Amino acid sequence: MISPRKAVALVSGGLDSMVSAARAREDGFALLALTVDYGQRHRIELEAAARVADALGAERHIVLPLDLTAFGGSALTADIAVPKNGVDEAAVPVTYVPARNTIFLSLALGWAEAAGAQDLFIGVNALDYSGYPDCRPEFIAGFEKLASLGTKAGAEGQGFRIHAPLQHMTKADIAREAARLGLDAGISWSCYDPVATPAAAGSLQLAGATDAFAHCGLCDSCRLRARGFEEAGLADPTLYAARP
Amino acid sequence: MISPRKAVALVSGGLDSMVSAARAREDGFALLALTVDYGQRHRIELEAAARVADALGAERHIVLPLDLTAFGGSALTADIAVPKNGVDEAAVPVTYVPARNTIFLSLALGWAEAAGAQDLFIGVNALDYSGYPDCRPEFIAGFEKLASLGTKAGAEGQGFRIHAPLQHMTKADIAREAARLGLDAGISWSCYDPVATPAAAGSLQLAGATDAFAHCGLCDSCRLRARGFEEAGLADPTLYAARP
Repeated sequence: MISPRKAVALVSGGLDSMVSAARAREDGFALLALTVDYGQRHRIELEAAARVADALGAERHIVLPLDLTAFGGSALTADIAVPKNGVDEAAVPVTYVPARNTIFLSLALGWAEAAGAQDLFIGVNALDYSGYPDCRPEFIAGFEKLASLGTKAGAEGQGFRIHAPLQHMTKADIAREAARLGLDAGISWSCYDPVATPAAAGSLQLAGATDAFAHCGLCDSCRLRARGFEEAGLADPTLYAARP
Repeated sequence: MISPRKAVALVSGGLDSMVSAARAREDGFALLALTVDYGQRHRIELEAAARVADALGAERHIVLPLDLTAFGGSALTADIAVPKNGVDEAAVPVTYVPARNTIFLSLALGWAEAAGAQDLFIGVNALDYSGYPDCRPEFIAGFEKLASLGTKAGAEGQGFRIHAPLQHMTKADIAREAARLGLDAGISWSCYDPVATPAAAGSLQLAGATDAFAHCGLCDSCRLRARGFEEAGLADPTLYAARP
C-alpha cells in the first residue's frame, strides 16, 4: 500500500481553516495540522483548533508557540481595543497582525520540507483579502514562488504548491462548503473577543474548565460568520452573547 | 532632532550577522536586533547574540523563542550528527534548517512593520549560498518582493528593503570588514558543536557560569571561520578545541 501524500494545513480553530483543511483531506492528503499559538487574546481558538484537527483525523497536530506580542502592532496581540461597531470594508483592520500569513506560511513550509510534503493549505478567502493584504491571491502566488527559491527541496527541483481552496469564496460559500463536507461548524471558533458564559449549545469549553465561552457577536469576525450562515440559508450552530 | 530610521537586523551571534548589523549601524539606522531561539543545539550562540546586540548599541534586542525542533529535519535541530570531516561545497549541508531564512525574514518583517521600519538586514554571503538555498541572491530578491505584497505597509505603497550587505563577500572579506568596522570578532560565535573548556582567551562563557566554551574547530562553520581569518591575514581571536 502506498502511503498517501502529506499536506501541511494551517488550522487556526476558525471556520475557514477548518474547511480548507477538510478540502486537503478530500483531495486525499494525510493531514499535518499546524496551529500557531501567537499570543492571540482569543485562546479558546487553540481549543477549537485541537478539536478541528481531531475531527479531521489529522496524522499530527503541532501547536507551535510563537510570541508575536513581542512585536505588538495589532489589536489581536497588543493592548488595542477590538472594534465592535461594524465591518469597515475599505480599510486594513486593526486586527491585522503584521506579516502574519508570511510568518505562518513560512512555518508551514518549514514543516512541509522537513516532512517531505509539497502541499500547503491556507484558508484565506475573498472576504479576507478585501481587508488583509496577506490574503490576496497575488500574495499567495508570490509565496508559492518564494517557497521554491528558499528551500533545499525547491533548489533540487521539487516545487511547493500553496492551496487556498477558499480563495474565491464568500462566507456564505464557506458555510455551504462546510455543510457539503459534512463538517460540524459548531466546533470552530471565529470570535476575536470571547465572552464567558455558562455551558450551553453552541458554546465552547476549555479542556478541564466548567465555564464556557460564547462568541461576542459584535466583532468583525462574528459579524461575518453570522452573515455567512444567514446568506447561505443555513442554521448557525454558534452561540452569540449579543447581536448587532 | 529627527530620530534615525530604524532597521531590523537578524543577529544570530555569529560573525556574519554581527558584521551585517554593524553595516546597518554604519548606514545610520537605529538597530532593532532580532535573534531567534529556534532550539539550536549551540545555545552559546544566544549568549553571543546578546553581546553583539549590546556591543552594537541596539535600541532593542528581542530573543524570540521558536521551537523548530518540533519539525525536525536538520542536524542543528534534530538528533543528526554534525559532520566534522570537512566542507562539501557541492551539497546542501545537513545543517540546513528547512526554510530557516524564510521563517527568520518573515519574523523580521513582522517586527519591522509593527515598528514602522522599512529596512531589514541579514548576514547571508557568497559562501553560504553555495550550500544553503535560502541564502541565494534570487531568494533575497524574491523575499523583498513578497514583503510588499504581504504587508499593510506594502499594500499602502511603502516597500521594504532586504539588505544583504555581505552577499558578495567571502569569509576573508567578512573578517576584513569586521576589522574595518572596529568590531571585536571574538564576541561572536560560529561553532555548531561547542566544546566545554576552562575559561581562556577566545572562549565564551554563559552568563552566571564558571565553565566556558571553545569552538570545536572541526565543523563546517569553524573551518570556514578559521579559513576566513587566515586568508585575510588577520589574527583569529577564536579559541578552537582542535584543528583539522
